[in-house]
Amino acid sequence: MADPRFFAAAGPFTLSELAERTGAEIAGAADPALVLRDVAPLETAGPDCVAFLDNRKYVDAFARSRAGAAFVHPDLASLAPPGMALLLSPLPYKAYAVAAQAFHPPPPLRPGIAPTALIDPSARLGAECEIAAHVVIGAGVEIGDDCRIGANTVIDDGVVVGKGARIGPNVTLSHCLIGARVTIYTGVRIGQDGFGFAPDPSGHVKVPQIGRVLIGDDVEIGANSTIDRGAGPDTVIGDGTMIDNLVQIGHNVTLGRRCVIVAQVGISGSTKLDDFVMVGGQGGLAGHLTIGKGARVAAHSGVMRDIPPGGTVCGFPAMPSKEFWRQVAVVQRLARKKDT
Amino acid sequence: MADPRFFAAAGPFTLSELAERTGAEIAGAADPALVLRDVAPLETAGPDCVAFLDNRKYVDAFARSRAGAAFVHPDLASLAPPGMALLLSPLPYKAYAVAAQAFHPPPPLRPGIAPTALIDPSARLGAECEIAAHVVIGAGVEIGDDCRIGANTVIDDGVVVGKGARIGPNVTLSHCLIGARVTIYTGVRIGQDGFGFAPDPSGHVKVPQIGRVLIGDDVEIGANSTIDRGAGPDTVIGDGTMIDNLVQIGHNVTLGRRCVIVAQVGISGSTKLDDFVMVGGQGGLAGHLTIGKGARVAAHSGVMRDIPPGGTVCGFPAMPSKEFWRQVAVVQRLARKKDT
Amino acid sequence: MADPRFFAAAGPFTLSELAERTGAEIAGAADPALVLRDVAPLETAGPDCVAFLDNRKYVDAFARSRAGAAFVHPDLASLAPPGMALLLSPLPYKAYAVAAQAFHPPPPLRPGIAPTALIDPSARLGAECEIAAHVVIGAGVEIGDDCRIGANTVIDDGVVVGKGARIGPNVTLSHCLIGARVTIYTGVRIGQDGFGFAPDPSGHVKVPQIGRVLIGDDVEIGANSTIDRGAGPDTVIGDGTMIDNLVQIGHNVTLGRRCVIVAQVGISGSTKLDDFVMVGGQGGLAGHLTIGKGARVAAHSGVMRDIPPGGTVCGFPAMPSKEFWRQVAVVQRLARKKDT
Repeated sequence: MADPRFFAAAGPFTLSELAERTGAEIAGAADPALVLRDVAPLETAGPDCVAFLDNRKYVDAFARSRAGAAFVHPDLASLAPPGMALLLSPLPYKAYAVAAQAFHPPPPLRPGIAPTALIDPSARLGAECEIAAHVVIGAGVEIGDDCRIGANTVIDDGVVVGKGARIGPNVTLSHCLIGARVTIYTGVRIGQDGFGFAPDPSGHVKVPQIGRVLIGDDVEIGANSTIDRGAGPDTVIGDGTMIDNLVQIGHNVTLGRRCVIVAQVGISGSTKLDDFVMVGGQGGLAGHLTIGKGARVAAHSGVMRDIPPGGTVCGFPAMPSKEFWRQVAVVQRLARKKDT
Repeated sequence: MADPRFFAAAGPFTLSELAERTGAEIAGAADPALVLRDVAPLETAGPDCVAFLDNRKYVDAFARSRAGAAFVHPDLASLAPPGMALLLSPLPYKAYAVAAQAFHPPPPLRPGIAPTALIDPSARLGAECEIAAHVVIGAGVEIGDDCRIGANTVIDDGVVVGKGARIGPNVTLSHCLIGARVTIYTGVRIGQDGFGFAPDPSGHVKVPQIGRVLIGDDVEIGANSTIDRGAGPDTVIGDGTMIDNLVQIGHNVTLGRRCVIVAQVGISGSTKLDDFVMVGGQGGLAGHLTIGKGARVAAHSGVMRDIPPGGTVCGFPAMPSKEFWRQVAVVQRLARKKDT
Repeated sequence: MADPRFFAAAGPFTLSELAERTGAEIAGAADPALVLRDVAPLETAGPDCVAFLDNRKYVDAFARSRAGAAFVHPDLASLAPPGMALLLSPLPYKAYAVAAQAFHPPPPLRPGIAPTALIDPSARLGAECEIAAHVVIGAGVEIGDDCRIGANTVIDDGVVVGKGARIGPNVTLSHCLIGARVTIYTGVRIGQDGFGFAPDPSGHVKVPQIGRVLIGDDVEIGANSTIDRGAGPDTVIGDGTMIDNLVQIGHNVTLGRRCVIVAQVGISGSTKLDDFVMVGGQGGLAGHLTIGKGARVAAHSGVMRDIPPGGTVCGFPAMPSKEFWRQVAVVQRLARKKDT
């Protein structure tokens, strides 16, 4: 059960209500009127909870689970313990996500402006915004309707934020135009100067960074991540892209739509990612690269060359994953032979 | 001498007082009444300072040092310069640490609540707390006795902080329960959503993150590190664990007791570390792994598989360190042969 | 054209004025009176803009560019499109940087102290400083003339900041002495404790960190980077060194003059870099190393040994770059041979 100090709960929902909301199919003879009060992980779910199985690593936990119901792929349904009601879905994690949203809707906005927030008279705030304590909003800023701005956040002159934004505490925004329904977590820094200078032993010469950061709709940006503004072109983050914590996005970078950028990734200046690219945690991309649609970079890999659409790379220098693993095997065999 | 602008000093202490406090043994004919006024590194210590030797790399600096006294392992005592008083200890760095604490006690609390701090009326603060300027403390928060909360820090609704906490400036805490005597450095983010969504080309579907972060006693968390709350299970940090700067801890991760996590490490979701695990700087751990008690991950390594208790791994993919170095040697030899 | 919401513009300038300011030479028959109104990248520059070509990757964009003028190395001048006025320079990017500074001077200081800033009566502020909202400045702090301190920044007791500093919002400074004309971006943390303790299974013993951070003149430090204070010796950053975002500098580290430290680099305790060292993004340096003057560490590399002056290393463990690439080629060939 989620800790009521932190989470409100909706529901309960019947099995058939959950099936309807998620598009899942009730398997076999399960009772559509079964009442479920929460989502929970397999290990701790009780008879009034719905869980899910998405990763074969957890089939044992699934078989042992006391969950009243679970979302599961039809292929794995036979591994369920007796008595568990099954909600069959080709995408069980997505179905679970929708169900979990039903049980745990995000906390409602509490519209109003904290007395200690400082808002420049020339800024325009939309309707029903929640502006927390000590927020600083500069000249000419535009904030859309239904936005939440967390405590101690600083939004510099001219920034535009679309409707429905969720901006955490202690954030800094400057030189950026942000779309609708964007979530920016605590400590994020957007719009500061890119790392642009002409290197010179007698003193590096700074290049004014006169681009912006353009962020599409439905983007998420994780805690303490940094996105520099463009040097002249803009830095661009496409619609629906998910960025995890402590990620660095250099100046002039373009991310396409619905990319997934895991924690501590670094993307160097002017590199362009097409749509649906995934970069695993701590992955690094050199500058001025082109990464094709749907490409995948394994965690901890360092990319020094372009990647074609659909390519999957690993290692440093990153190479096609099949080649990487072949090389790993070859070197391992050689080292072991040396021993004998 | 420590800069008095920043550090108060206690003492002086005699050699015998230091021996008593640290459990070290005075070697040979050294004068137990020798007066020492500060700790200092070997290179800059004068006759009224106590230094230490713990790393063989510094035996030359030791031999040249003008320190009046030094903590040293009995095996290295013979390398001391003439006239240096020696404090023999099997753990000279630990003994030095205790002595340094005596000379440089942490700055005392200045209990009181800054006039600009905003504290929800339903929050409960312990005795003798120091709450700095512009702090924001939400509804239902509980803070133990003798805590310091730095300026501009935001503590969200429901958070619990144990007694004796030292929380730096510009920190953000939410959805977490924190033990006693925990130190949280500036810019740390705890309790924000984990990176949880069902990936989908038509729009990733967010999974509500309804777990918490549970932090044990005597934990330290370095500047700008991020610890996400659990997705359903909790994210857990065990007693006495030390976390350096810019570390990322994903949702559902469990760290055991007294682990050491060096700067810029990333630990992916649901990975479990047993007690006493050490991860070197920039190390990365994939998700859903089990890392055994006392295991060590070399700096800059990327771990993709479980590690047994006591295992020591290096490289990417991380492998037993002996194997890693053997492979490095084999490849080096091959490449050189090619040249000739 | 730079977005006027965010950037003021100076100019226009004639071709000959730009040549004079930058030391570039006007090529051939170009009209010295040509009027230029802005800098712009090759792709988007119009006839009243000046661009530059510095990277051979962009010769096609150069040939297609509609820019009225461009800085270019004499060797590449022949690739220019007809009608483009050329400003020849052996360092075209540096010349462009100077021109861009002319068109886009940094925003002027707006001297004054925000009413919500809290400044200890014992702090000394220079003339013409701009202190933003909710800034907290502690006892004994000294700030030079012409400094800007961004909103919600915390400067702890005793810190000294030289003249002309630009300190962003949401920064935390403690235990540090900072030179003239330093730029510190948003979210930077300077002066917190180093990661110093005597590891011990019965409870790690903290070592008081009684050094400082000393930062030279003309240094830049990128968003959310962290620089720990020394354990006893100081942590030192030399004049003119450029540090990117999310960089970790451990205690007792020394960086020489005009080093370039790219995003997400980590430098472990007590390592010393001489002048002009470059470390690529995500590079990691172990502790207690000596890195010679002008050495270069490739991005994503992990350095475990000293590097001689002028050395160029790559890989993990980092080795001379030539050797790295030879090893990459050898392993690749072996793995491919295995296939056939």
